[in-house]
Amino acid sequence: MPPLSATIQATPVPPIPAVRGWAARYQGNAPVLDLTQAVPGYAAHPDLLARLGEAAADPATTGYGPIDGDLPLREALAADTASFYRAPIEARHIAITAGCNLAFAMVMATIAGPGARIGLPTPWYFNHQMTLLMQGAVPVPIPCRADDGFIPFPKRLEKLLDGLTALVLVSPNNPTGAIYPPHVLHEIAAMCRRKNVWLVLDETYRDFLPDSASPPHSLFSEPGWEEYLIGLYSFSKAYCVPGHRVGAVVGGGALRQALMTALDSYQICPARPAQRALAWAVPALGAWRAGNRAIMAERADACRAALAQLPGWRLDAIGTYFAYVRLPERYPVAMEAAEQLATEHGFLCLPGPFFGPGQERHLRLAFANMEPARIAEIPGRVG
Amino acid sequence: MPPLSATIQATPVPPIPAVRGWAARYQGNAPVLDLTQAVPGYAAHPDLLARLGEAAADPATTGYGPIDGDLPLREALAADTASFYRAPIEARHIAITAGCNLAFAMVMATIAGPGARIGLPTPWYFNHQMTLLMQGAVPVPIPCRADDGFIPFPKRLEKLLDGLTALVLVSPNNPTGAIYPPHVLHEIAAMCRRKNVWLVLDETYRDFLPDSASPPHSLFSEPGWEEYLIGLYSFSKAYCVPGHRVGAVVGGGALRQALMTALDSYQICPARPAQRALAWAVPALGAWRAGNRAIMAERADACRAALAQLPGWRLDAIGTYFAYVRLPERYPVAMEAAEQLATEHGFLCLPGPFFGPGQERHLRLAFANMEPARIAEIPGRVG
Ligand SMILES: Cc1ncc(COP(=O)(O)O)c(C=O)c1O
Ligand SMILES: Cc1ncc(COP(=O)(O)O)c(C=O)c1O
Repeated sequence: MPPLSATIQATPVPPIPAVRGWAARYQGNAPVLDLTQAVPGYAAHPDLLARLGEAAADPATTGYGPIDGDLPLREALAADTASFYRAPIEARHIAITAGCNLAFAMVMATIAGPGARIGLPTPWYFNHQMTLLMQGAVPVPIPCRADDGFIPFPKRLEKLLDGLTALVLVSPNNPTGAIYPPHVLHEIAAMCRRKNVWLVLDETYRDFLPDSASPPHSLFSEPGWEEYLIGLYSFSKAYCVPGHRVGAVVGGGALRQALMTALDSYQICPARPAQRALAWAVPALGAWRAGNRAIMAERADACRAALAQLPGWRLDAIGTYFAYVRLPERYPVAMEAAEQLATEHGFLCLPGPFFGPGQERHLRLAFANMEPARIAEIPGRVG
Repeated sequence: MPPLSATIQATPVPPIPAVRGWAARYQGNAPVLDLTQAVPGYAAHPDLLARLGEAAADPATTGYGPIDGDLPLREALAADTASFYRAPIEARHIAITAGCNLAFAMVMATIAGPGARIGLPTPWYFNHQMTLLMQGAVPVPIPCRADDGFIPFPKRLEKLLDGLTALVLVSPNNPTGAIYPPHVLHEIAAMCRRKNVWLVLDETYRDFLPDSASPPHSLFSEPGWEEYLIGLYSFSKAYCVPGHRVGAVVGGGALRQALMTALDSYQICPARPAQRALAWAVPALGAWRAGNRAIMAERADACRAALAQLPGWRLDAIGTYFAYVRLPERYPVAMEAAEQLATEHGFLCLPGPFFGPGQERHLRLAFANMEPARIAEIPGRVG
């Protein structure tokens, strides 16, 4: 057989199927508790489902559409983004992609390329690392500390930016749930701009930020933001439609233009029925989205309460979809501990090492998918 | 602004929007004749539309699905592939992707990578070249001649395979429409196997092959085919649903395993409602697909008749979706000629240079989208 690419050989295997594979050896009677994947744990809005159905049955959505998405959805997301950040974002800044993972991959193909060094605060989102390795780029870990709530410390970051092509921040964070405070984002953004480093900001979970009078940052309102800043968005979580695969890039200028080349080659266009239905949903389901924040907050509380009952388990961070937990010293390292929890207790979660170096004692619990009553089962299950 | 990636800067811009952009300067009264894109020119089957609608309205399709596609569609395509090629293809050989372009990109990420040399017979499919350049791979043109009907000549190819990681063949071909005869495919396949070069076979247009008693090749029935052969398929054309974005990879062994890593990072899963509806359509719409072959053959005939009326235009190849035409010497080079045809006559087609070196006198006409009556307007329009 001819060889596989050196890049794919250097890329770790997908974590979620690996962990779910362990569950095959679980022999208990209680049903498996699966906290591996960040999935919204309630149904999509019935009116959205009805519109998805109508759109998909319409011959008008069967054809290829514009490379960067249908204009109504670009306009709707631009208006939503503009009001969310109070910033002059327009449709020309929005490109729709087949999911936010593809958005990241296409942005990196546009700005990074083989050999480029890309800063990823650790713990990182595993698919960011995997995509960079696949492209021959170099993920550079930027260690964050539990003591800082896993928020990067701008002063410590400054030197690490030298030689980077881009820095990727995820806020609210996957896997920690941490929300980066505006002043941290602003300080880091200013450093990136000064040092001519792209700042890629993945805000997949922005719709689950706790209600607040002010936006999470005002970077999109600063003049010339297009010169260094790129936003990533996902419709998967906010609208409960990950299976429809819709995400977006917020960017401008030369980046936005070059992105068209990447999107043409990889996606041709995003799936069209979901685009049409979402163009309706973005303005129409604002109140519903706000309500879901409360559901998520409730689940976070349930998770907090459950973990408090587990002696020695340290809840190092929690927010939106995730809890990031440090195992007591009596447990083996996270990879082994997670395997034991899966095979012996039917409790599935992702061990820290999938999220980068230095994570040997941590587990990520993606609780969004689980009702509080089931979250409350955790202590009985793993205790 | 930080720089864009060297790879994206080396990648040509998307051809279709470029050509459609020229149409803005067309001032004629007759409506634009757009022969730029390979789009099926009739509606999807009404029962498929109904099922697409049902599937998209069902909350069960809103969630993430398996990385490599839902099993019912993998099984359906495996059965269809097995009966089409009379080969022992099973669901474990099938991975579903968000379109065949993504299938190609993911296969190349898995076998090629930066620096790999990939043979593309010219004229090539422009997105293949673009994707390779984006990945830092090197597209190696393998010149085909009009005199050979743009079929590569195995004996001439043999030496060119040295140092290649993979050879990509497209049959029926885009842009020429050429159908590679079985003996050519078999000879080339044997050479690839002997020389340890991957053979990637894009058969997006296989459902439009003229009815025939025998499959287009029997490569998938040879023992050990997984060791060097990778098939690509698209549901876009055969089922008239490009806007739903579904394609597939046919592959096995270590390639199939490594492909999971690429798919996890880039697509997470393909769009799920279309997968469910297509799982029904693959066995159910066999007769309908066969009927569409006749529609396409009719359009090819109309195109042949229309071009015969244009003095000096030489129809160098025609088949399935495309005619590949050589311009008379009185015209300027293809890039200029196509621009003139667009701006002065409202006639849009892709000039040869988008399809690789040595194509300065050719135009690709994608006629699938156009009814015979409109195809018959071509001579009056450009004459
Ligand atoms: C930080 C982050 N970015 C991107 C994604 C991918 O989202 P999508 O479903 O839009 O591809 C996820 C999904 O878990 C995520 O956590
Ligand atoms: C040869 C070839 N491969 C792949 C594709 C892309 O198909 P899809 O819509 O499945 O991405 C096309 C579309 O024109 C094509 O001509």
